[in-house]
This record gives sequence, C-alpha cells and structure tokens, in this order.
Amino acid sequence: MSQTASLSASVVELAEALIACPSVTPATGMVFDCLEGQLAPLGFEITRFLAGEAPDGPVENLFAVRRGPAGSRHFSFAGHLDVVPPGEGWTSGAFLPERRGELLYGRGAVDMKGSIAAMVAAVAQIPADAGTISFIITGDEEGPARFGTLALIDLMREKGEIPDLCLVGEPTSVNRLGDMMKVGRRGSVNIWLEVEGVQGHVAYPHLADNPITRLVAMLAELDAIVLDEGTDWFQASNLEVTDLTVGNPATNVIPAKASARISIRFNDLHTGEGLASRVTEIARAHGGSARAVISGEAFLTQPGPFSAMLSEAIEAETGTTPELSTSGGTSDARFLKDLSPVIEFGLCNATMHKRDEAVAIADLETLVRIYTRVTRAALARI
Amino acid sequence: MSQTASLSASVVELAEALIACPSVTPATGMVFDCLEGQLAPLGFEITRFLAGEAPDGPVENLFAVRRGPAGSRHFSFAGHLDVVPPGEGWTSGAFLPERRGELLYGRGAVDMKGSIAAMVAAVAQIPADAGTISFIITGDEEGPARFGTLALIDLMREKGEIPDLCLVGEPTSVNRLGDMMKVGRRGSVNIWLEVEGVQGHVAYPHLADNPITRLVAMLAELDAIVLDEGTDWFQASNLEVTDLTVGNPATNVIPAKASARISIRFNDLHTGEGLASRVTEIARAHGGSARAVISGEAFLTQPGPFSAMLSEAIEAETGTTPELSTSGGTSDARFLKDLSPVIEFGLCNATMHKRDEAVAIADLETLVRIYTRVTRAALARI
Ligand SMILES: [Zn+2]
Ligand SMILES: [Zn+2]
Repeated sequence: MSQTASLSASVVELAEALIACPSVTPATGMVFDCLEGQLAPLGFEITRFLAGEAPDGPVENLFAVRRGPAGSRHFSFAGHLDVVPPGEGWTSGAFLPERRGELLYGRGAVDMKGSIAAMVAAVAQIPADAGTISFIITGDEEGPARFGTLALIDLMREKGEIPDLCLVGEPTSVNRLGDMMKVGRRGSVNIWLEVEGVQGHVAYPHLADNPITRLVAMLAELDAIVLDEGTDWFQASNLEVTDLTVGNPATNVIPAKASARISIRFNDLHTGEGLASRVTEIARAHGGSARAVISGEAFLTQPGPFSAMLSEAIEAETGTTPELSTSGGTSDARFLKDLSPVIEFGLCNATMHKRDEAVAIADLETLVRIYTRVTRAALARI
Repeated sequence: MSQTASLSASVVELAEALIACPSVTPATGMVFDCLEGQLAPLGFEITRFLAGEAPDGPVENLFAVRRGPAGSRHFSFAGHLDVVPPGEGWTSGAFLPERRGELLYGRGAVDMKGSIAAMVAAVAQIPADAGTISFIITGDEEGPARFGTLALIDLMREKGEIPDLCLVGEPTSVNRLGDMMKVGRRGSVNIWLEVEGVQGHVAYPHLADNPITRLVAMLAELDAIVLDEGTDWFQASNLEVTDLTVGNPATNVIPAKASARISIRFNDLHTGEGLASRVTEIARAHGGSARAVISGEAFLTQPGPFSAMLSEAIEAETGTTPELSTSGGTSDARFLKDLSPVIEFGLCNATMHKRDEAVAIADLETLVRIYTRVTRAALARI
C-alpha cells in the first residue's frame, strides 16, 4: 500500500491489507508497518515501540495522534492488531483475505482488523481541524497483555496525551451490527487454594489429618456464597471452582496436600482485592491458604452522554437500538478505563476466534459511517 | 537345612533359614523349599502349587497337614512367606539374617517368618496323635492377595480339610509380646466417584455445568455422614476422601469432568455392598456415578472359648493379659474367617515393614511356648 493509499482506499481494501499481514499474538513488524502506512498520509504522528521479553513479549505497540487546534477535544480509538492462531480447516488461507459473495474472509476480519480499517476510513472523513484524534493499538490483546495497552497508557501519560473519550473496536455486536455495545466489563480474579495435612494410613485416621476433608468443607462454603444479585448494569458475580488436585495413587493412604483453583467474575460491587481477602479468610478458617491473581477490576462507564452519542450514531446508520451490556470476558477496556470513559463497539462476533472468520462487507461500510458520526460528535461536544 | 533339622533346630535357626531366602511379594520357590524342609521331617503331608498370572502372579502357596486319629480336632496355623521390599539403608543385609545382641535382624523377622518358625518349633513339641495340625502358607499376603490364601481355601475345601480353629501369626503385639491379639478386622471398600458436566468458559457459566460444584457437594455430604459410634469390639467406621482429580490447566475454563476416590474402613455393623449402595445413591443424587471395589468385609470372631484359650496361654508365658483388638489394616484373616473362627497373634510389630526389621530372640522362644500351649489346648477341647 502506498503512502497515500488510505486517502482513497475503500475500507475493504484497508482491511484486506491488514489481514494479509500474519500477526498471531504477540504481533510485531509487518502488520504495524501496514497500519502506519495507512495512518501517516492522514497526518498522524506515529510512535511505535517494542515492550517486554520472552515468553510474554516482545510486543509491538503503536500510538498515533493527529492534533487539532489548541483546546480541541481528544477522541481515541483503541484496538489490537494481534489475532488468535488460525487453527486448521480454513476454506481459503487465514492470512490470504478473500471476498466470497458478500463476505470478506480472513483471521482478524471481525476481531479486529476490520474494525481498525473502519476507524482509519472514518478518520479519513474528518478534517484535521475538527479536533485531536488518536489510535491506541497493541500487538498483544489476545495473550497475557502484560506489555500491550498498559505500556501504551504509560506512554500517553508521559506525553500528556489524555483523551476525553475512548472507543474500543472489539466485536461487540451479536446478531446484527449495532445490537450491542459494552459499557463495562466484569472483573476477574483467580485464586489458588491449598490445604496441607498430615499423611497417613486410612486404617489409622487419628494419626493423620486429611487435607481433602478441609478442602471440601472450604469449597462447599465458597460454593454456597451468593456474592450479589446483580446490578442495573451487571449480572450477578459468580464463583467457579475450576480445578482440583491431589494426585494420590495409593488407595490406602491419606494424602499430605490438596489444592484447588477458583475463578471469580465480579461486578462493580466488588474489588479483586476485597474478594481475595474474603476467600483467604475462609481458606484460613479451614486451615488452608490462598494465593490470588487479579486479572482485572470490574468497571462501568456509567451510561450517559457517551453511550447516548454512540447509540444515536448506531441508530441513525442501522435503525437498531443497541443494548448496553457488561457481559462476557475481559478486554483491554479494563486498562483504558483508567485513562478516560471507555465504551466498546464493533462488528458481529459470531465468527471471532473461529475457522473461516468473516465480516459482511456491508457491515464494514456501515461501521465506517457509525465511527465517522461518533467521532464528529465526540469532537464537537464540550 | 537337612530333612531332619527341624527336629533339633532352635526357633532362631529356623527363622534364620527362612529369612535367608529372599521372598519379596509375590514369593515362590526357595523360601517354600525351606519351609517344606522344616515341615516334612515332622510328618507333614505337603501340597505346593502356583496360582495366578502376571502382574499379580504367579504366587506360590503351601498347604501342609499332619492328620491325627479319626475324629481329632483340627487346628490350623496360617501365615505368609512373602515380605515387603527391604528398601535402603540396612545395617546388615536384609536377607542375611544377623544376630546382634539380643535381636535377630532381617526382613520378615517379625512379619512373619519369625512367627512361622515359632509355629514349626511349637508343632515339633506336639505328638502326632494329639490331633490334626495344618499350615496354610501363602507367598502373597503383602500384595494384591488375589491368588494366595483364597486359593489355599479353595484347595482345603476341595480336600475337605476344614479346621476347627485357625491362628494367624501376624505381628499383633505392640509394646511387648502378648499385649494384643486381633479377634476381628474392619472391612475395607474403595469407591471411585465421577461427575460429568458440560465444559465452558467461566465468563458464561449459564452455558456450562460445573462438575466440581456437584462433586464438592457430594463429598461434603459424604464427609458429614456418621456411619456409627463404634461397637463393643470395633472402633467407629470411617470414611476418608483419598484423591481428587480434575486436571484442568486453563484458569478460564469450567472443566467437563471431576472425580474423587474414597476409602471406607468399616465395622461389622456394615457390609461393603451396603456401603457401596449408600454412596452410589448419594453420588447419583448429585448427578454423579460410583464404582466400588470391596477389599474385605468386616468380621469378628466373637470373644469366647478361642480367645480365652489364647489369653490363658499368653498370660501363662508372659504374665501379660492381651487386649482383644480389631484395629488396624486388613490381613488374610478376612478370608480365613469363612473357614473357621480365626484369631491373629504374633510378634511385636514396631519394626515391621521398616529398615532393620528385628525380633527379640527371647520373644521368638516365648512365642514357641505360647503356640505350643494353644495348640495343645485347641486340640484337646471338644
Ligand atoms: Zn479482540
Ligand atoms: Zn504380615
């Protein structure tokens, strides 16, 4: 793609160019060259850098900004150029974009190279003096995400480039483009539980201390907890035991140790730290211990002007009123919410992470119009 | 050892000869040749046979009988010539019997080549017309025991050689020779529990069915069961969960399957079958399944004439009144109780299955006198 192609290229051509660059997590190099080639001619100042080391890095990240007049509003698009591995059985090559009928096929078509192409095409419609626009693009959202968006946020803070609003292009639509946006995400914490006992022979239980008995009682107590009943914007928080480990081959032996792992997905009535403390207390009451790793805190961009602005744009272009949801897994919005109000909205997610991932070409074009409208509105508002 | 050695050999020499034949479970060959050489000169008719195939066989077994006059009482000694592996770190060779001070060292010294030597030495004191005496000796008591004493019992039934009483020479003494005999044993059943669920992502628990939740509830219910409070002769039955298995490495995945294993040691208020049914019912109520393997039923040789006869012999020779116990693991007495009343009595068990297993030479000599007394009494009674 030439340095000026983005000025005239269609969103489909922009998406194809990105898909044609293989970029399984952690992504670096070519796919970033491609995006840089699309943004530079639009007047963006581009910063690229590698972060982290093996095994979770190095990861490439890109921050691009086009500054409006002094005092302008600042609107950010955020997303990721890495994709999940293609797996087997594709009809055409996962990294050989192919239009068949009304669809464009290729890994990343909806998650989320298609959305990033729509962002670029949208921005191409906006005059440079409308305000400040930036792109916050990482090469590791699908992986551990330790050296991706977090590093970009650090960079932006250093540079003093703090947006007023941020739109993440994750594929949030479910059955048709525009039926859902995400105004928050649940938090996530994994907790490893361990009980040490005293090994012994089952015939002499008074000489042993069975750690499984205490682990079972602990887990039964944890399973019985009702964390909450949900809120206006969130479903109820939920705890699942995801693993049990003893590994005792001897039928007549009481083992020395038993462990379990739990996963809690929680709404904004909780914090990861608070839940970790609560579980640790229960673990200790049963003579065990707990070690928690918080993957992300719950957050909510309180529905209001930003979600209304996005809803208006979606309704105008699709006739559909989007549901404001907080369901599903995590995304980099969990980090970006520390920078500004953040909402996620993008393509239909039916084929994401699957074989023959595909996007409707008409959806790509509609998404460009939605993103254009919301960018104008975001830059216009005080 | 010559064919007539047992007529004059001391119990220590008999024990040394047996210990010098390595016989880790399953035992065959030399150690049986040795015992045959001790019994044949005493007038015993000897039947030896191999039973079973790999991996739990072949196992050698020996039945020896010396018939008294028609209408005689029949008294059996039972035991095993196999031993547990010696392990590392012995002061002298595990299969090189060595007297040091007042002790005789070697694998099997107390469990139970020493006892078998005492049986032989005792029988050498009893005139052939006193009654029928037999030896029921297996090469697999410490292992799976599928082809050992069970096969001997089959043989005896075929031959019509059913004893009136049976004494098993397991090392039942604890702190000093004579302080404990075993008049019964608890039963044992192992049960494998499994719950199948529906795998899924922790963020969408309503689309999954976590098998761990149901397994934990099942185990909590099982752990809460009070099987009984014990009886006059038995301690309370006891259930232990001995293993848990899921094997799910993914923190964000609800697994498809969870399993556990329990072990129940039970007294004669229960049967293995009854407990298996009860556990199966609870497993099914939680949507799981259960598979039980009964290792042995509980049994009690009701304290009475036999135990009194043995107590008298022990008291006369040691001044100690033995406790009548049913504690501990299983032994082949669980099979022999189908043949006749059975009691276990033998040497001190402090060093059994351990490095530097050893027996007090004085205990061996005292045990010969106890076994001689009880044999006379058992053959005399109507
Ligand atoms: Zn994505
Ligand atoms: Zn034994």
